[in-house]
Amino acid sequence: MFFHIKELQYHAKPERPDPLFAKQLQEVLGGQFGEISVALQYLFQGWSVRGNGKYKDLLMDTGTEELAHIEMLATMIARLLDGAPVGDLETAAKDPVIGAILGGMNPQHAIVSGLGAMPADSVGNRWTADYIIASGNLLADFRANLNAESQGRLQVVRLYESTNDRGVKDMLAWLIARDTMHQNQWIAAIKELEAQENVVVPSTFPRELEKREVSHVLFNFSRGNESATGRWANGPSIDGEGTFQYIEHPQPLAKKPVLKPAPSYIHDTLPSIIKNDMVPPNLS
Amino acid sequence: MFFHIKELQYHAKPERPDPLFAKQLQEVLGGQFGEISVALQYLFQGWSVRGNGKYKDLLMDTGTEELAHIEMLATMIARLLDGAPVGDLETAAKDPVIGAILGGMNPQHAIVSGLGAMPADSVGNRWTADYIIASGNLLADFRANLNAESQGRLQVVRLYESTNDRGVKDMLAWLIARDTMHQNQWIAAIKELEAQENVVVPSTFPRELEKREVSHVLFNFSRGNESATGRWANGPSIDGEGTFQYIEHPQPLAKKPVLKPAPSYIHDTLPSIIKNDMVPPNLS
Amino acid sequence: MFFHIKELQYHAKPERPDPLFAKQLQEVLGGQFGEISVALQYLFQGWSVRGNGKYKDLLMDTGTEELAHIEMLATMIARLLDGAPVGDLETAAKDPVIGAILGGMNPQHAIVSGLGAMPADSVGNRWTADYIIASGNLLADFRANLNAESQGRLQVVRLYESTNDRGVKDMLAWLIARDTMHQNQWIAAIKELEAQENVVVPSTFPRELEKREVSHVLFNFSRGNESATGRWANGPSIDGEGTFQYIEHPQPLAKKPVLKPAPSYIHDTLPSIIKNDMVPPNLS
Amino acid sequence: MFFHIKELQYHAKPERPDPLFAKQLQEVLGGQFGEISVALQYLFQGWSVRGNGKYKDLLMDTGTEELAHIEMLATMIARLLDGAPVGDLETAAKDPVIGAILGGMNPQHAIVSGLGAMPADSVGNRWTADYIIASGNLLADFRANLNAESQGRLQVVRLYESTNDRGVKDMLAWLIARDTMHQNQWIAAIKELEAQENVVVPSTFPRELEKREVSHVLFNFSRGNESATGRWANGPSIDGEGTFQYIEHPQPLAKKPVLKPAPSYIHDTLPSIIKNDMVPPNLS
Amino acid sequence: MFFHIKELQYHAKPERPDPLFAKQLQEVLGGQFGEISVALQYLFQGWSVRGNGKYKDLLMDTGTEELAHIEMLATMIARLLDGAPVGDLETAAKDPVIGAILGGMNPQHAIVSGLGAMPADSVGNRWTADYIIASGNLLADFRANLNAESQGRLQVVRLYESTNDRGVKDMLAWLIARDTMHQNQWIAAIKELEAQENVVVPSTFPRELEKREVSHVLFNFSRGNESATGRWANGPSIDGEGTFQYIEHPQPLAKKPVLKPAPSYIHDTLPSIIKNDMVPPNLS
Amino acid sequence: MFFHIKELQYHAKPERPDPLFAKQLQEVLGGQFGEISVALQYLFQGWSVRGNGKYKDLLMDTGTEELAHIEMLATMIARLLDGAPVGDLETAAKDPVIGAILGGMNPQHAIVSGLGAMPADSVGNRWTADYIIASGNLLADFRANLNAESQGRLQVVRLYESTNDRGVKDMLAWLIARDTMHQNQWIAAIKELEAQENVVVPSTFPRELEKREVSHVLFNFSRGNESATGRWANGPSIDGEGTFQYIEHPQPLAKKPVLKPAPSYIHDTLPSIIKNDMVPPNLS
Repeated sequence: MFFHIKELQYHAKPERPDPLFAKQLQEVLGGQFGEISVALQYLFQGWSVRGNGKYKDLLMDTGTEELAHIEMLATMIARLLDGAPVGDLETAAKDPVIGAILGGMNPQHAIVSGLGAMPADSVGNRWTADYIIASGNLLADFRANLNAESQGRLQVVRLYESTNDRGVKDMLAWLIARDTMHQNQWIAAIKELEAQENVVVPSTFPRELEKREVSHVLFNFSRGNESATGRWANGPSIDGEGTFQYIEHPQPLAKKPVLKPAPSYIHDTLPSIIKNDMVPPNLS
Repeated sequence: MFFHIKELQYHAKPERPDPLFAKQLQEVLGGQFGEISVALQYLFQGWSVRGNGKYKDLLMDTGTEELAHIEMLATMIARLLDGAPVGDLETAAKDPVIGAILGGMNPQHAIVSGLGAMPADSVGNRWTADYIIASGNLLADFRANLNAESQGRLQVVRLYESTNDRGVKDMLAWLIARDTMHQNQWIAAIKELEAQENVVVPSTFPRELEKREVSHVLFNFSRGNESATGRWANGPSIDGEGTFQYIEHPQPLAKKPVLKPAPSYIHDTLPSIIKNDMVPPNLS
Repeated sequence: MFFHIKELQYHAKPERPDPLFAKQLQEVLGGQFGEISVALQYLFQGWSVRGNGKYKDLLMDTGTEELAHIEMLATMIARLLDGAPVGDLETAAKDPVIGAILGGMNPQHAIVSGLGAMPADSVGNRWTADYIIASGNLLADFRANLNAESQGRLQVVRLYESTNDRGVKDMLAWLIARDTMHQNQWIAAIKELEAQENVVVPSTFPRELEKREVSHVLFNFSRGNESATGRWANGPSIDGEGTFQYIEHPQPLAKKPVLKPAPSYIHDTLPSIIKNDMVPPNLS
Repeated sequence: MFFHIKELQYHAKPERPDPLFAKQLQEVLGGQFGEISVALQYLFQGWSVRGNGKYKDLLMDTGTEELAHIEMLATMIARLLDGAPVGDLETAAKDPVIGAILGGMNPQHAIVSGLGAMPADSVGNRWTADYIIASGNLLADFRANLNAESQGRLQVVRLYESTNDRGVKDMLAWLIARDTMHQNQWIAAIKELEAQENVVVPSTFPRELEKREVSHVLFNFSRGNESATGRWANGPSIDGEGTFQYIEHPQPLAKKPVLKPAPSYIHDTLPSIIKNDMVPPNLS
Repeated sequence: MFFHIKELQYHAKPERPDPLFAKQLQEVLGGQFGEISVALQYLFQGWSVRGNGKYKDLLMDTGTEELAHIEMLATMIARLLDGAPVGDLETAAKDPVIGAILGGMNPQHAIVSGLGAMPADSVGNRWTADYIIASGNLLADFRANLNAESQGRLQVVRLYESTNDRGVKDMLAWLIARDTMHQNQWIAAIKELEAQENVVVPSTFPRELEKREVSHVLFNFSRGNESATGRWANGPSIDGEGTFQYIEHPQPLAKKPVLKPAPSYIHDTLPSIIKNDMVPPNLS
Repeated sequence: MFFHIKELQYHAKPERPDPLFAKQLQEVLGGQFGEISVALQYLFQGWSVRGNGKYKDLLMDTGTEELAHIEMLATMIARLLDGAPVGDLETAAKDPVIGAILGGMNPQHAIVSGLGAMPADSVGNRWTADYIIASGNLLADFRANLNAESQGRLQVVRLYESTNDRGVKDMLAWLIARDTMHQNQWIAAIKELEAQENVVVPSTFPRELEKREVSHVLFNFSRGNESATGRWANGPSIDGEGTFQYIEHPQPLAKKPVLKPAPSYIHDTLPSIIKNDMVPPNLS
């Protein structure tokens, strides 16, 4: 069960409206690695933990915080849209500043949301749950979380670089710091789990059932051997189960597949035609 | 530029047709962490590397191998669909085995693809590039890759557990082993980069610009303190830049936001109405 | 800012596992009118209210409650999936009960989420923000909310009819009651706003600017006059601005459109060819 | 069965081309509440009515009219795109008017549709049937329709405000008037049904089966009591079945859920690890 | 402008309900090549024709007929769903026929549409305008249409093969015949245009501007020369502009690309790190 | 199995950066008819061919070449993005050139991909497998391929017209030539198959089972007879099975459908209400 506090976790007030930056800022609200993604990802992971304890709590703590970040961004975007102009763009283009605003802003911010934030990214794609990950395996999922916070912090930093508004920068500096913590925390959680399991997910599948002869092999499928110099091709494997090998000229291990004809009720091309290697006489 | 070899990287031959397993196997061909996802993710990352060297080569090597895995799965699925029955399901239900096949298989395998594999997951959602990640920052992206191989191996293992077909299990055991290698290799690459940068992505953003007072703080946003016992709330931070802190009762730092009214040409609800806290007389 | 309470708002415990009903129940978690939709719809509307007061508070209250409903459904679904079988479906089909479970359950519940709830509907489509609505105009949006609660209660009722599990029915009876309240509350809010504005949204657009001659006209575009007997074709219009009219034989008011040719750099079909009404000689 | 008349229902001729407004106008052709949405929504509802009579006829009449509106908008957009420039944007930017056109127009209008309208919204998202609603319950669906016409008229009004072209404004004034009628008609139809059923959808579910103790309760889930002053928290409920109540401090009614461990073949994190609240020794 | 006739173009009455076939039949209503696709594809093409005459008329004639086919399929599906059972699937599974129905039908047909047809395909994916094509170039688009009718007839034939219901087969036999005509008509229209233009679309691009040295070359990018025996590798090219050539060992024509480093404000991985080919000392 | 050659198939080097054209060029990389579409379409068709021989080889040859085209476009786009500016757009708008760049470029090229190409189209929609087609019937699929190459070449030509950059034009001229070949080759393959089967797909369905009385009939569903003058309404049908007929006034062949009421557990509107044609007394 949740409660809402009307005060914001942190300030979300720009110095001045900027409908163009509002459009860009949508990326970290409703994009692939925006706050909706991390909020729902952590909550769904938390609700699915089978058992209880600190991992579940950590997921719920962080997921609930991310809801507050959605709120901060929604507030900031609405304020950046304050008084966004509407009007004939061709006329406006005579004033290049207004023309740039009208041409560059997201038209849905005026037409659809009435100057509110949208659950969408910086090009207007609506948020989709295709972005989120919850597998029931915590080590796998914490890696997903570390990735999400890495991509997310990178995007917020890029946005920080592209505005001069001190109010916006102040809020982004807060979000960047929180992403610093969240990267730290998922790394810490990953280390705990790796120490108890193995670095390879899932750790519970018996290694003797996999084809161990290729478990530590780098196949060189692109001409040139630069990749042979990496750690991944030299020395003991990270999982402690073998030694990295580099195979310069990988060979196929199975024959050309030939599929059987389909039954007649499927109406694929007839085998007699597929097999015919001759140019038909009337076309030659 | 690419070349194709008609032989398969590894065997993809089931003992017998199984249209129901064909449907499930689609998950690791065309699902969120299927082979299309990793192939295109690694190739797009590789094409975007600004510079050259072993990382780009590693991405191209691995992305190119994943194309071979798409091929193996497409071949296996077509063979599992060999001679899939069609027919009146209600009649078929009198034979529970055929009824289960007709009721449980993906109808598009008959109607749409003509017994071929589809670029879709196990419930029939078509593959989408929403699944893939390429940011230009290799540490961020290698974490995405490690996650993809962790989720992917987990899914293949779950599929391995749910079939008795020795041909299918043989191929899955190969894919599991390759995922073992790929997890190993991305961890190795991550370690290399972390050793040269910092664990926090992006490492190039000046730390003094973020709100350092919350860079290592775990806020307790869910009632109960289980999360206080984790490594993430105790001791030096993983990034070597501070000490983890646990805040049991986080407080909001900003006031309730009040947004300004929209301009009249937006036709949002009028401020006079929004502000009116009284029940209108004719409704009381 | 939000806080999370670990206890559930209401019980979410089935009498026994039922992976097939788990699949169906996903509809009201992650479908078009599921709990994710109403939670995010109300929160986004609340965050966008320009001004403050009871309407914003009502939106935040209800949106926050819906988060608790997501949690209840996620918990219920995970429990319905307890111990879901995996295995060879063709073999299982020999036991029709297990065959029906394996054939009818959502394969992603095993392969992808590891027996957790998914942010998806009953056929496996991932949730998308295409489902939600927030326009900045409260009367419009409260109508969207009334619709959402009407569709939602209807779906929950249909699910209630299709299970015998007393634990599931108990939780659904709670959700049905909450939807009763939510329909009541949005109707009450709509009545308040209609009393202050007009029934037509937006009320602030000057009526003299619209083509008033067709503002209260029902055009009969399908052969037969059954629709002429409704309230909408007889008597004063609901908005108090005119009288309903029924036009049995509507006529077009504009000529056939003829579009100008495209410029040559667009490479559309040449005008000389489009205009040519003759069968070309070599085809006649 | 349908027939097409080549004349337009109403004029769709702009004074002059305006590729930028063409992009914006796409919203009400192919957006969430555009004409494709209402046309297909009403037709699908009409085809699904089980029985016959005035409601079905009303749906078919209106759905068929909306097809004519798609046609008018498609014609208008093609004309607004007449002679849209192509060319090097950087060069063009030296003439700010042409630069604004090239930078602000939808590139797909040139590259993909060859200066034709697209089945997409103002940011280029293709139309999806996720937007439409047809449940078989007419009261629920007429509420969906009332919402669609409310959102739709609001969007058309916003577009009306942002152009100076008298031809465009003329057509939009017609569409606004039709949306006035359509809001009126759905309200009239809703009133008819509510008078025969109850305001709560579906009216056929026995009230004694729902948890009546929470059927008229507003839970205060956000700190502050502004929402307590609304009609929804005071007096008899709108459905005539009770009295509104306001609960200031809602309490959870169920215990913390603890999910059982997953079976081993799912390969979720092991229960022994999830339960472990200790920091592993080698990390402390 | 359109008119609707309540009578159906052709019969749409099954002998008996069959909820399982209803699910499959959705493919040709709301799938990639279903009737919604062809209806909207032809209408959008028609509305975009710049000019007038027989091609535009043909598109409008056929698009309008396809609306009648949507209606027939929607009617048929609703009738196939007549009295679809709901209930506890596990209990039902004891009667294998009812179990197969409940397990195999689309749950949204009961929960969402209330036994109505849905704008979705046979696995429940909602229809999307991603499926349709309208480019402004009629030869290109008529090829799209020929493909759509080819895929569509193939799918209807496959459905015809999988039912015993004489009412369903009767309607499908009608649709198959119409698809026969539609394939014939698009071929006829294509031949007319090819006779006036060239077989290569667009015919208006000056041939001397393309790299003519590779305009008729088949590159052999997969090991083995089977493709060398086809008409496409021998004799005069179809467009009459050259002679087909087969190149057995294609060579790259450009050097390895090396991308410049990104500017620092993008925070991609630093060039110093990307260039470093050495294993870092602390990992060796 | 695949191999990668680091050299490019053809040059992909612009004269200068142009982030605006980079956005447009995405259309032919990740749009509906971009290189990802044709690559995966041909490969999936190839993998599904049941049998072997020249058609399968042709598909694999061409699909593999298209992978090289994705690579060329990804490289070109990254170079067009070299040093793309970031910054305050309102400030930048004072320099109209920079303002146009910032306002017109795809913001995700900076925020998300870090100046890399994206798997998306020119308005930012991510690529989806909804775009691709593989049915198992080669004649149907080669028609899909011919359409794809026709639409694709048309789009590349339109892009060629809108840039002055000689490096970009050089690469596009190469791609245009390859599309010339690919149109030629699919036409050649279609002719081969049509010569062995029939022009109507699938050729294997017995003609006597379809409703032959409408197999060669053009119904005139739109007022006006322009379409009567085409080849499709006159003379022998293309498939050699009949004679084209034109029916000026098509009549419905089936009665108005009336659907049976739904069972009570579906909670559709009650039949007693649907049948009621009277205005309820309290509304009259």
